[in-house]
Amino acid sequence: MEKQIKTAEILCVGTELLLGDIVNTNAAFLSQRLAELGIHVYRHTAVGDNPERLKRALDAAFAEADLVITSGGLGPTYDDLTKETVAAYFGREMEMHEESLFAIRSYFERTGRVMTKNNEKQAMMPKGAIVFPNHYGTAPSLAIEGEGKTAIMLPGPPGELTRIFKEEVLPYLEQRHGTVLVSKNIHIFGMGESAVEEKLADIMTEAKNPTVAPYCKEGEVRLRVTAESHSRESAAQMCDEVIEKIRSTEVGKFIYGVDVDSLENAAVEFLRKNGLTLATAESCTGGLISKRITDIAGCSDVFLGGCVTYSNDAKEKLLGVAADTLKKYGAVSEQTAAEMARGVRERLGADIGVSATGIAGPSGGSAEKPVGTVFIGISTERGERVRRLSLSSMRSREYIRMVSVANAYDMVLKAFE
Amino acid sequence: MEKQIKTAEILCVGTELLLGDIVNTNAAFLSQRLAELGIHVYRHTAVGDNPERLKRALDAAFAEADLVITSGGLGPTYDDLTKETVAAYFGREMEMHEESLFAIRSYFERTGRVMTKNNEKQAMMPKGAIVFPNHYGTAPSLAIEGEGKTAIMLPGPPGELTRIFKEEVLPYLEQRHGTVLVSKNIHIFGMGESAVEEKLADIMTEAKNPTVAPYCKEGEVRLRVTAESHSRESAAQMCDEVIEKIRSTEVGKFIYGVDVDSLENAAVEFLRKNGLTLATAESCTGGLISKRITDIAGCSDVFLGGCVTYSNDAKEKLLGVAADTLKKYGAVSEQTAAEMARGVRERLGADIGVSATGIAGPSGGSAEKPVGTVFIGISTERGERVRRLSLSSMRSREYIRMVSVANAYDMVLKAFE
Repeated sequence: MEKQIKTAEILCVGTELLLGDIVNTNAAFLSQRLAELGIHVYRHTAVGDNPERLKRALDAAFAEADLVITSGGLGPTYDDLTKETVAAYFGREMEMHEESLFAIRSYFERTGRVMTKNNEKQAMMPKGAIVFPNHYGTAPSLAIEGEGKTAIMLPGPPGELTRIFKEEVLPYLEQRHGTVLVSKNIHIFGMGESAVEEKLADIMTEAKNPTVAPYCKEGEVRLRVTAESHSRESAAQMCDEVIEKIRSTEVGKFIYGVDVDSLENAAVEFLRKNGLTLATAESCTGGLISKRITDIAGCSDVFLGGCVTYSNDAKEKLLGVAADTLKKYGAVSEQTAAEMARGVRERLGADIGVSATGIAGPSGGSAEKPVGTVFIGISTERGERVRRLSLSSMRSREYIRMVSVANAYDMVLKAFE
Repeated sequence: MEKQIKTAEILCVGTELLLGDIVNTNAAFLSQRLAELGIHVYRHTAVGDNPERLKRALDAAFAEADLVITSGGLGPTYDDLTKETVAAYFGREMEMHEESLFAIRSYFERTGRVMTKNNEKQAMMPKGAIVFPNHYGTAPSLAIEGEGKTAIMLPGPPGELTRIFKEEVLPYLEQRHGTVLVSKNIHIFGMGESAVEEKLADIMTEAKNPTVAPYCKEGEVRLRVTAESHSRESAAQMCDEVIEKIRSTEVGKFIYGVDVDSLENAAVEFLRKNGLTLATAESCTGGLISKRITDIAGCSDVFLGGCVTYSNDAKEKLLGVAADTLKKYGAVSEQTAAEMARGVRERLGADIGVSATGIAGPSGGSAEKPVGTVFIGISTERGERVRRLSLSSMRSREYIRMVSVANAYDMVLKAFE
């Protein structure tokens, strides 16, 4: 067993990075995961497919770090040299790894492609390497330990790297640490980040294990609760205890889920659980409400359809909004939002109708209804309710639409409250 | 005048990068721009807000590169030390730069915020620095030249960095080169990348100035034509000549625009130019067709609205699709697509109705109509036409929906052909 890992460098290999053809998401992903493990990342480096530069980067990295994680340069071609260069650093020879060769052969058979001689090179491993299986491609993943240093090599494609990290590398690092980490995400809507931090100041400052870290995503606040313990069960329980504590604060009523993907996912679950159906009526959001729910495969049991009524004429024809309402209160009004929601609910025979009408900008605002004014309507058999949003007119059209959609799903979740 | 710049390193500063809180898009952006300038980027490095490590990274970078571009570490707080560290490398003292101080004061007045003493630090500049104005924030941008080396320092926020680069840094580098660069993007739909490369093999291999580089984006192919010349006009003309040459090949009829943002932007221009209106009827795309056109501010003069008819019932009620059609041919059929497009066009009184019905997956496919089968319908006063897409069932739901939308707008552009 090697010594405890405290510091790390992330070393990404690939000329496509240096040409700017791809954005280095691997470095951010690995950094987040290592931060959760309490490993301090002090540098990211990206170099091309050039063994000399890679060698120098490796020397520079190990001069300071206990752990170097590489991504890329594990392909079948002659310029994929990460494995060979790292092996040379550790003074290891390469040898055929029969299990990997078998796995690569199976992968080609499974995907119906022809294996070339080059791919056999991918099964060559440094002597004594710890080989992680790759179920998502042909590039190997592996670790080498020696003299207080550890190198972990992962394939470049983010879809492969992230999955192998979670399935293979994380347990490996946990085993090295002798502890396991469990993270849970609390999803909060309707309270800003600074307000959440203020309300939870005591809990967040006290919390060393589990840690509680807030971050913002698409107009929502998330709290990542991460516990370290000797077993997965006990770490999960430690998370749950903090989550219960947070639920009992003022923040509690703004929590819409734990480890759900999004508000619309929470809405689909809610509708399904209660045997309800939804219909949408959109003006300023232009189809984004329905787009977001139909991103979810299999939503058709709860989502019937909707109307995008950009013109006043469309609001009348498709949703039966009264001409009088539009004339008297305007298309962007509480009244129109209510009639849109009721109209689509009745026309499609849904249990819940949700609507959005507003001014997404950048132009079209007035003193009374500036850019950022949006009305979200909800209709059920109990009647209609409307929420008025007054978002900053400095915000982008995209942001105003996104927050409107989030509010729409928040109101769906509360339709019968 | 310093010597010609041939090699560069990109050095990003910010602890938030090392924590994985943000993805380093600046490195990719700067790499692309430098590649266009013919400057070879051989390494990316990211370090935290730590002057010691920054100094070492700077030494390592200048050991190999003529140019180092930094991003970040130019803020007002005590740990923003990029400027001071680079100044020390070049042996320059810091002095107050009155123009920058005035600009920062004006920025605070303009945005109605209070300027703190810290912000004055942002106006301190190394002696002899070339200062670039920043209209988008308070962080300065500057260059230092000396002993065959050049450092360019840019703020971290991508919105500021990209704009200052285009407006200030690019002209500065062009002046250093004594030439200017102009790029134009040819947008192609309906022909794959490898087919485009095959048809244009001669032009692309020959082309040294302008260069022609293909890249894929959201199911489309783009060709970036970049010319280098002594003046902007002559470089633009050189691009235009190659573009004309490409238009005259087989690829020509798949070009839908030059320097347009997207297919839906091209569609809005087309509709506006011809005084036409559009309505949408969506099943599998679930609102994405209307979402994309309403991303464009001011689209309401050409886009009337649409229906998202996920259930058969909604197709009948909202669009008047015949129950017989649904029963005989199914919801995913040429006939249903045609009736959806006609239905929405007639109901909303639009000039063009466009529809999409298909199987976006991952489940719901059959032998006859596997996942990836999508029918795009178009309706005008001349009648209906339907395009059948047979996308690979291995593709993601997201991809199938995205390509369906692209085809919908492609058919709108060709509605009266």
